[in-house]
Amino acid sequence: MSKGTVVLAYSGGLDTSCILAWLKEEGYDVITYLANIGQDEDFESARKKAETLGATKVFIEDLRAEFVQDFIWPAVQANAVYEDRYLLGTAIARPCIAQRQVEIARQEGAQFVSHGATGKGNDQIRFELTCYALYPEVQVSWTVERFIPDGCHAPGDLYLMTKNPEDSPNARDLLEIEFKKGVPIKVTNMNEGKSVDSPLDIFSYLNEIGGKHGVGRIDIVENRFIGMKSRGIYETPGGTILLQAHLDIETFTMDKEVRKIKQGLGVKFSELVYNGFWYSPECDFVRQCIAKSQENVEGKVQLSVFKGQVYILGRESPKSLYNEELVSMDVQGDYDPCDASGFIRVNAVRLREHHRLQGFFNTKQ
Amino acid sequence: MSKGTVVLAYSGGLDTSCILAWLKEEGYDVITYLANIGQDEDFESARKKAETLGATKVFIEDLRAEFVQDFIWPAVQANAVYEDRYLLGTAIARPCIAQRQVEIARQEGAQFVSHGATGKGNDQIRFELTCYALYPEVQVSWTVERFIPDGCHAPGDLYLMTKNPEDSPNARDLLEIEFKKGVPIKVTNMNEGKSVDSPLDIFSYLNEIGGKHGVGRIDIVENRFIGMKSRGIYETPGGTILLQAHLDIETFTMDKEVRKIKQGLGVKFSELVYNGFWYSPECDFVRQCIAKSQENVEGKVQLSVFKGQVYILGRESPKSLYNEELVSMDVQGDYDPCDASGFIRVNAVRLREHHRLQGFFNTKQ
Amino acid sequence: MSKGTVVLAYSGGLDTSCILAWLKEEGYDVITYLANIGQDEDFESARKKAETLGATKVFIEDLRAEFVQDFIWPAVQANAVYEDRYLLGTAIARPCIAQRQVEIARQEGAQFVSHGATGKGNDQIRFELTCYALYPEVQVSWTVERFIPDGCHAPGDLYLMTKNPEDSPNARDLLEIEFKKGVPIKVTNMNEGKSVDSPLDIFSYLNEIGGKHGVGRIDIVENRFIGMKSRGIYETPGGTILLQAHLDIETFTMDKEVRKIKQGLGVKFSELVYNGFWYSPECDFVRQCIAKSQENVEGKVQLSVFKGQVYILGRESPKSLYNEELVSMDVQGDYDPCDASGFIRVNAVRLREHHRLQGFFNTKQ
Amino acid sequence: MSKGTVVLAYSGGLDTSCILAWLKEEGYDVITYLANIGQDEDFESARKKAETLGATKVFIEDLRAEFVQDFIWPAVQANAVYEDRYLLGTAIARPCIAQRQVEIARQEGAQFVSHGATGKGNDQIRFELTCYALYPEVQVSWTVERFIPDGCHAPGDLYLMTKNPEDSPNARDLLEIEFKKGVPIKVTNMNEGKSVDSPLDIFSYLNEIGGKHGVGRIDIVENRFIGMKSRGIYETPGGTILLQAHLDIETFTMDKEVRKIKQGLGVKFSELVYNGFWYSPECDFVRQCIAKSQENVEGKVQLSVFKGQVYILGRESPKSLYNEELVSMDVQGDYDPCDASGFIRVNAVRLREHHRLQGFFNTKQ
Repeated sequence: MSKGTVVLAYSGGLDTSCILAWLKEEGYDVITYLANIGQDEDFESARKKAETLGATKVFIEDLRAEFVQDFIWPAVQANAVYEDRYLLGTAIARPCIAQRQVEIARQEGAQFVSHGATGKGNDQIRFELTCYALYPEVQVSWTVERFIPDGCHAPGDLYLMTKNPEDSPNARDLLEIEFKKGVPIKVTNMNEGKSVDSPLDIFSYLNEIGGKHGVGRIDIVENRFIGMKSRGIYETPGGTILLQAHLDIETFTMDKEVRKIKQGLGVKFSELVYNGFWYSPECDFVRQCIAKSQENVEGKVQLSVFKGQVYILGRESPKSLYNEELVSMDVQGDYDPCDASGFIRVNAVRLREHHRLQGFFNTKQ
Repeated sequence: MSKGTVVLAYSGGLDTSCILAWLKEEGYDVITYLANIGQDEDFESARKKAETLGATKVFIEDLRAEFVQDFIWPAVQANAVYEDRYLLGTAIARPCIAQRQVEIARQEGAQFVSHGATGKGNDQIRFELTCYALYPEVQVSWTVERFIPDGCHAPGDLYLMTKNPEDSPNARDLLEIEFKKGVPIKVTNMNEGKSVDSPLDIFSYLNEIGGKHGVGRIDIVENRFIGMKSRGIYETPGGTILLQAHLDIETFTMDKEVRKIKQGLGVKFSELVYNGFWYSPECDFVRQCIAKSQENVEGKVQLSVFKGQVYILGRESPKSLYNEELVSMDVQGDYDPCDASGFIRVNAVRLREHHRLQGFFNTKQ
Repeated sequence: MSKGTVVLAYSGGLDTSCILAWLKEEGYDVITYLANIGQDEDFESARKKAETLGATKVFIEDLRAEFVQDFIWPAVQANAVYEDRYLLGTAIARPCIAQRQVEIARQEGAQFVSHGATGKGNDQIRFELTCYALYPEVQVSWTVERFIPDGCHAPGDLYLMTKNPEDSPNARDLLEIEFKKGVPIKVTNMNEGKSVDSPLDIFSYLNEIGGKHGVGRIDIVENRFIGMKSRGIYETPGGTILLQAHLDIETFTMDKEVRKIKQGLGVKFSELVYNGFWYSPECDFVRQCIAKSQENVEGKVQLSVFKGQVYILGRESPKSLYNEELVSMDVQGDYDPCDASGFIRVNAVRLREHHRLQGFFNTKQ
Repeated sequence: MSKGTVVLAYSGGLDTSCILAWLKEEGYDVITYLANIGQDEDFESARKKAETLGATKVFIEDLRAEFVQDFIWPAVQANAVYEDRYLLGTAIARPCIAQRQVEIARQEGAQFVSHGATGKGNDQIRFELTCYALYPEVQVSWTVERFIPDGCHAPGDLYLMTKNPEDSPNARDLLEIEFKKGVPIKVTNMNEGKSVDSPLDIFSYLNEIGGKHGVGRIDIVENRFIGMKSRGIYETPGGTILLQAHLDIETFTMDKEVRKIKQGLGVKFSELVYNGFWYSPECDFVRQCIAKSQENVEGKVQLSVFKGQVYILGRESPKSLYNEELVSMDVQGDYDPCDASGFIRVNAVRLREHHRLQGFFNTKQ
């Protein structure tokens, strides 16, 4: 008699194949689940392996469009960067993958979920927090431990999506990215005239162009949620282009003080996503606030991509005309230069008194 | 009879020459002051021009070493970046230049200072706030208005220090930067074996290497203190290399939670410096807190510079050994994998209840 | 011939009567405007005085209901307190008064507005920023300077709404306040059974009860927007009761981490309102975020009011049941006590390493 | 043969007596440790009970002076309040108690520590984090579970230090508290002329006066570290008086912008202490920053204590004279009223453009 049903996040690799075999041996029915979020993988071969190892059912789910639209786009809006450098690629993928796994578990009446993420890594936390958040009664049945040693320079072949910038083309690509409500709605290659406009096509195309030019590689030390430092080597070609373009159009169209508050919310969002709290009341709240801030983030950014770098060349926006109005206002004399002096002198009141006070105390001593 | 003495920040250019002439005409004695903070300028020709125009005295001050050590180094410690992109080059130079001008004014008994910064730009504010903060009784006597139109792509020849990345060398430079207390104390070019170790030499050398490889060019829209948006085109080759290297060694050696608090202070610092409040009680306070956070930020970062990019290759630190200890602790079994599960489940208590509660309310409606 | 029309915020007092007379003399048509936001004032006598002094038109506007609902309620949701103590009474009134004045100016075709707020006080700033924000072409025509010296204890008769707590009743009042979406929808006096439920009645009644018991008096030094410190003596009887009750029901019904983010937004909101930025993109943004956070802030708070104090006695909420569920979950053993140990040990990983590292360095030195 | 030595935080009550007996039975040597931090307890009777139950050694440590100076004073400097209301009394006591327990464990060669704090409460976390932080090799050997149900009004006799305000004296006490570097150095009762000046005497005396007048009782719901809400009933008579007095003298003597940054650090400090991270790198960092901010927080605050309330009556400070200077500066005309208008108009530039822009878009739609 079966001990129950486990939905296992299965990659076709050694680790999760071992887990599958072990779970069968222990008397569980195992449903394998493999999410396609755009990785380079032989899905059919994984299906066969799972069937051979005795999986009751095999789910292979194409989550690519959903991943881009519901997970990556909010991160673009947030300018999400963890500890000033990491663009959160896998951290964003995890809740997307786990939420579908939980849906399958509910639909198949499975009480257990399992995965191959390692115990001290963040991915275990991200995976399990999502499962508990969306399916509070679920039980997580197994983890596997594996460690990647730190200390040596990363070999080049760790990178799958990006070329080495030294080997990348000697001619730049010129892109124009159009945004509406803070997300890209169209990308045009100005060299070739080609353009794409669905979320998945946009993201795939930016990954392709960014990858070709070696954009978005980093080799960092990061602080894991549980406090340990670990080395991370990442490549985020499309994400890096989008971050630069979004930063630009956002600053161009968003009020200065709104931007400052939103920047703080973006830092919070990044930390929550890194730590696995995508599905939490606070992340939900922050996402809604950030979305609210993006209503007027709209326009086009021109940029070039070359040898690992993204260069912003210019921007335009239907929401930006007030800048020109302001300039013409200067010319017309509506702005009194004496106002600037008053502004500065009032800002200086506090500073002057501080200085006088210090002088006074120094004299007394 | 003279109306008094003005110390004029004089560049030798048209604007400040006009101011000089005008001030003389109005009946002031004018002392000109020209600070050398590393810009490419013909100081002797400026001296002659000032004398010809009737300057009573001419001060040409070499502030380069002071600028690097007292102004740039604290910005490096802070990872100072305004609105996620601008590395604050001129914003940092202004208080350095103005503080010496005020010293000269005091020493020469001048009641007035003057400058050529434009009324709506930030530089007027930065200049005047510094003067008022350090010499509360001073009067600022004149400003000149000039505007740079926005809207077109920046021509390449705006850049003085950096080569166009497309024209930069096809071979990378390999550098090792050594930090102590969060500031660089030595830079070694690992290709050539050359190394430099005084603050000014370090900064100049990084500017040279960065410039050669086209590092640190940006074309942005920024929010000025007074609320208007304006376009800024900047190049910060050495600063960009230092920012990347410092971010790396800091994350490697600083506690995760200290880092998070310090990151917030760095954002504040950047905003204060951008707005001209270098000499303010709050900026002083923030600088002291940040300096305190840097006590253990120590070690060496290896990086390559190539075609406009800085790539971190590795890092080492006498303060980092605990990472290896932690890894070995895993092996020895001091870390119980069941702890991670407990950690996750406790973090999930709130999320699970939130989900249950929402389900309960949805049922009720 | 008239120089134009001025809408003057007129109180009937000496200062604004002088301004009225002076504006007439200078050749302006003057429309007076007096807002009733609940203050104790002889509106009819003010009307007569204005007419006598030559006002072209006299507007006396009852803004009480609007003031409570559109201005005070958002401040209640925000737990708005400036510098930890000041409940922002007059700071909130100013944009309410000025927005109506601007409406009248537009409707009457007046190009000018005027007021009696003093130059260095915050009220001038709050007034004028609101006018410029809502009517960018308006001109502000006059300010009057007056200073209140600091340094002596406040005499008791400064307070208009609150009794001296020493003279207040020896029997407490028991109230129950019901909230929905973070604003009070009903107040019941549990001694008398009386209850009120419109916004204006609720606020007036809480002012009455709070005033009777001497609640909400403060004598503080505050930092004005322009940087100077000034003494402020305030009474906010109803606001103080609402702040305590709202804090309680909010903490009872809001997720811990949402609360933390919202607390930061509330501090920002308070600062913006204090500084006069009610009508600004950033205050609008913050208000919307805060309103979003209040969706489940719902329930009843019981409290007593006695001798200047508010004591929370208990609370209940339809959104709070999950707490009881959690407790029962403990009983049922769904919560593994070993999880807590795992949680703690994982939190301690960083602390233990920090300690070991310090020991190691101390040994080396 | 003994399994090892345990240092048990022993209260003399039922729970820890059971633990003691159980540990003996299990084969451990048990050293009991009872800290005197000012609670009302029969220490000698506890000693006898411990000896009777077989404790190898009994430590009764008077930590009162250390507790006030090293733990309460930094919290006073920070204006430490958790979730806007809780003054952190027990949260501050826990690291003080545990650090001495760890010292004893080290000195006695004990590998184990134990305590009676409950598994889901914060006190277990605070206790254990301190132990791990200061003695990384230690093992925590036992916890006991106990739950206090929520939902009913707190009975009056829960309070040990404070009288019911309704039963408190009808005459107020007048106090003057003198601060230096943000901590109290002298308290004078202005009715009686009595004054005290050691840290322990000051804190005890303020507890006595506050307790007599029923100051500092709260009945709240709070969010525990692990995310659950729980009810807390606290009394902090002396702490409440100090919080009000310190807030006052701090605002009087600290620069506005420093205050704002420091306020954020104080919120962080409160959260860290609540969560048990007193001994952590980040809490250490925050404490040092806060201490730095207190250098000029100096002067005297006069206040009255009456029927549960603290009323600030006035303040004076040798660091405050600049305020008077500023006022006289006004009189002398050094402050140009036109500066205020310029200041306001520059602040309004952004708001006016925002309004115009919105009008423009509305017209277009």
